[in-house]
Amino acid sequence: MRFGVVARRDKETALKLAYRVYDFLKVSGYEVFVDSETYSYLQEFNEEDVLPLEDFDVDFIIVIGGDGTILRVEHRTRKDAPILGINMGTLGFLTEVEPHEAFFALSKLLEGEYHIDERIKLRTYLNGENRVPDALNEVAVLTGIPGKIIHLKYYIDGGLADEIRADGLIISTPTGSTGYAMSAGGPFVDPRLNVVVIAPLAPIALSSRPMVVPATSRIDVRNLALTREIILAIDGQFYTHLDPETEIRVELSPRRARFVRFTDEVYPKYTMRIKKKF
Amino acid sequence: MRFGVVARRDKETALKLAYRVYDFLKVSGYEVFVDSETYSYLQEFNEEDVLPLEDFDVDFIIVIGGDGTILRVEHRTRKDAPILGINMGTLGFLTEVEPHEAFFALSKLLEGEYHIDERIKLRTYLNGENRVPDALNEVAVLTGIPGKIIHLKYYIDGGLADEIRADGLIISTPTGSTGYAMSAGGPFVDPRLNVVVIAPLAPIALSSRPMVVPATSRIDVRNLALTREIILAIDGQFYTHLDPETEIRVELSPRRARFVRFTDEVYPKYTMRIKKKF
Amino acid sequence: MRFGVVARRDKETALKLAYRVYDFLKVSGYEVFVDSETYSYLQEFNEEDVLPLEDFDVDFIIVIGGDGTILRVEHRTRKDAPILGINMGTLGFLTEVEPHEAFFALSKLLEGEYHIDERIKLRTYLNGENRVPDALNEVAVLTGIPGKIIHLKYYIDGGLADEIRADGLIISTPTGSTGYAMSAGGPFVDPRLNVVVIAPLAPIALSSRPMVVPATSRIDVRNLALTREIILAIDGQFYTHLDPETEIRVELSPRRARFVRFTDEVYPKYTMRIKKKF
Amino acid sequence: MRFGVVARRDKETALKLAYRVYDFLKVSGYEVFVDSETYSYLQEFNEEDVLPLEDFDVDFIIVIGGDGTILRVEHRTRKDAPILGINMGTLGFLTEVEPHEAFFALSKLLEGEYHIDERIKLRTYLNGENRVPDALNEVAVLTGIPGKIIHLKYYIDGGLADEIRADGLIISTPTGSTGYAMSAGGPFVDPRLNVVVIAPLAPIALSSRPMVVPATSRIDVRNLALTREIILAIDGQFYTHLDPETEIRVELSPRRARFVRFTDEVYPKYTMRIKKKF
Repeated sequence: MRFGVVARRDKETALKLAYRVYDFLKVSGYEVFVDSETYSYLQEFNEEDVLPLEDFDVDFIIVIGGDGTILRVEHRTRKDAPILGINMGTLGFLTEVEPHEAFFALSKLLEGEYHIDERIKLRTYLNGENRVPDALNEVAVLTGIPGKIIHLKYYIDGGLADEIRADGLIISTPTGSTGYAMSAGGPFVDPRLNVVVIAPLAPIALSSRPMVVPATSRIDVRNLALTREIILAIDGQFYTHLDPETEIRVELSPRRARFVRFTDEVYPKYTMRIKKKF
Repeated sequence: MRFGVVARRDKETALKLAYRVYDFLKVSGYEVFVDSETYSYLQEFNEEDVLPLEDFDVDFIIVIGGDGTILRVEHRTRKDAPILGINMGTLGFLTEVEPHEAFFALSKLLEGEYHIDERIKLRTYLNGENRVPDALNEVAVLTGIPGKIIHLKYYIDGGLADEIRADGLIISTPTGSTGYAMSAGGPFVDPRLNVVVIAPLAPIALSSRPMVVPATSRIDVRNLALTREIILAIDGQFYTHLDPETEIRVELSPRRARFVRFTDEVYPKYTMRIKKKF
Repeated sequence: MRFGVVARRDKETALKLAYRVYDFLKVSGYEVFVDSETYSYLQEFNEEDVLPLEDFDVDFIIVIGGDGTILRVEHRTRKDAPILGINMGTLGFLTEVEPHEAFFALSKLLEGEYHIDERIKLRTYLNGENRVPDALNEVAVLTGIPGKIIHLKYYIDGGLADEIRADGLIISTPTGSTGYAMSAGGPFVDPRLNVVVIAPLAPIALSSRPMVVPATSRIDVRNLALTREIILAIDGQFYTHLDPETEIRVELSPRRARFVRFTDEVYPKYTMRIKKKF
Repeated sequence: MRFGVVARRDKETALKLAYRVYDFLKVSGYEVFVDSETYSYLQEFNEEDVLPLEDFDVDFIIVIGGDGTILRVEHRTRKDAPILGINMGTLGFLTEVEPHEAFFALSKLLEGEYHIDERIKLRTYLNGENRVPDALNEVAVLTGIPGKIIHLKYYIDGGLADEIRADGLIISTPTGSTGYAMSAGGPFVDPRLNVVVIAPLAPIALSSRPMVVPATSRIDVRNLALTREIILAIDGQFYTHLDPETEIRVELSPRRARFVRFTDEVYPKYTMRIKKKF
């Protein structure tokens, strides 16, 4: 088995734990790679094991960090290796174990006592072309000027779903339903569902509501105020300015995120985390 | 082909249109039945064609009325004959055509130019027994004393989803998502989805949120304040008081509601009706 | 100085602390009265000091219990004696000190080191007559049948404010803004303000919003569905069924609730309690 | 009496009506000034009557346009001359009459048959200094990067009111309560009240709620994520980037906006406009 190791860059304890995980796996006789950015913050790893995330071709990726670190891995890897997330973030909706459980979790992984939790992702086409990362959480179409509303129409499978004047529109997976979409008033969505939440962000019209649609829907977004700058934000990580006339389409990605899980528990595992948001 | 005809009882124009539909179908050579309650308000129908809804065994039921009339038919019939709804109500989320289109719609139906829109329903088990109608819109577990909160726990597939102090809990189909569940803060749900919305009604905790779960989930509700009276309301039509210790379970019903549709349009057909709610 | 002592009836520790407070004040040479209901649960008090709440004519009332106990005192006393609340409830929005601070608080009270926090109350007139208690938290006009919406119009100073189909309408003081009104979507209101929150409860129309109006406004509520039973609930404690045609008017009461406070802190004292609601 | 005339610049009918109003008042013998920007779009006005808004020293300003035009006048004039707004916008919360009523309204104004509706404004101090316009609607503290939350604490009169991670914070007058603050979940506030609404914009914590506080409160906002860019937006018109460490204070302005009104009706005048938001 081949492993990848990635750590949160701004937390020394995460980098150190990453090294211990790397060392443990090496000593156990596995091939282990560490991503170049993690390496750039902690040079103790063997230089020959360093690879950019884009070139990872491994069986599992061990991520030591928070949801942000996992999203970075998701955006940059090209193969859907299952991720084991060790929580060094705040809420940890995506991570599976706490730091003190790290080696116990690795043992279970090596013994095959786990299952894979697959999550859908959303692919964005700009004028028909996909040149941005897939979203594990959400695609956000936002005003380029904070506080200046944009005027959007959005269509589900070709039919007009709503016309809004708002700060933006959040198109979220079930995984992302506890994130930005929830701040915009969207519901919690069971991660086992193949659905998409579409939630207007601070809409002027009080009758504009979050919607839940099939993940197989084609979602088209059109900007009606052609003088207004638009921003596309993927998972709160990848940002790009769009020409106002850009045709935005969001569809189910052929790729999936895959997570190593030791239980298949959803409730109260996820719902209780909502209560702890701050 | 055999037809059933049912009208809203409190609107003379509905009863009259029901008679014209009945007459047209009879003259066209079909077997037609009229439900006993419609007959009790307009005696022009042939007495031998009168049947209680429970005994309807027909290919199609023509319902002239609003969503309430359709819900009455759904609660009382024992076979899932497709319903063609002619709107004599206010919003008409379930009805398909307006009164002036009635005969045009009938012709299309007779010529086979339609398709069937199947909708899931929810079945409620009280202490393991099903003795209430299936819900096409929602099952509501409500405080028996308006303004006095109840204290509930609810479980999805055995896992604790939330514990709430609230006026009640709404468990809704996609069909019902535009109704009581939306008043409780729930999202619009695409009618093609097999999901259930669970929305707390005026919860004390601001962190209690609507959830969307698989329609195949087993939803268990427990009342923790055993001195508090509980009411079960199905589709806002069927009401029953529950003993505080009643174990409430809600699951996907094996039955489906079936509607005659002439287009398969969802957007903006349903989403625009939300805007007209008053 | 003359004191009244009232305890929560269903909690033995509250009754015992009430006796210790009573004893301390008696020994200190003050006249002390205990309310008949508290006495009926703990007969250690001198029988000659027992009085119904309605006959309390004292300088201060020491209440040992939660917000519910304070509301009971407010509804039944006829004079606005300042209340010192010792928290034996859950959230304690109205109480001032915790049990372990009780005697320290009494000393400060006896030494005059306190100030009075006055709160507005709402008076309800039914067909022009006031025959229900003043509300310290809220007046709720509710459907008599849970789950069956009522159809109301409400007027501010004679002008139509909104027409709603809803489970009810909450008319709340700033004190009540953290209670039922907040569950209905209303804002937190600074307790120093002389305003009233009017919040529809689970309205069908998504455009019906909570309103904040001057406390001096005359608020008239009319029930348009004359076959529907209506319930009036004051502070979640006093309930009465209303004839559907009852003319409901809510106005600022000439009475005030008065609380003994040792600080004049509002923030974060009240806002942090909102976070602890469950 | 001296008049000022200002028109919306991007609508020819508004400019033409402005000229007719100007002409009518000149012919009636009054001194009339037109603002330089209006003049730059329609040169028919006498050049000697043209003045920048900053130099207007008149008894009344006639504004032909929407709420945006009125806000521009409010931000730039230095004296609080009453404004008569003739609606050439969409919703027109601030304007008083429709174009076809313009000359009837002018006659009533000249005959003295009107009253003045005074509205509070908010003044913003950045590091103790006021160098931005007063807000008639709202002061918004927003993330500089759409979709990237900011981390704020805000204090009322020195006490911590809340700590939020959100897209921003809206601090609104009653006049602004139907605008951005309402999109953020805030209530409608009666324009006669001297209160301020503070509403977090898409907060992560579900327990962060809109608040209503006295207009005389001192509201301090601190940015805790010192690497995050912050934007200050006044009335959706005036924008400025802030250094992350800027101390933001918002207080009641000594200035008032003054509007010419022909009725003192609030309900349903304002509440019905909420229903028409789109």
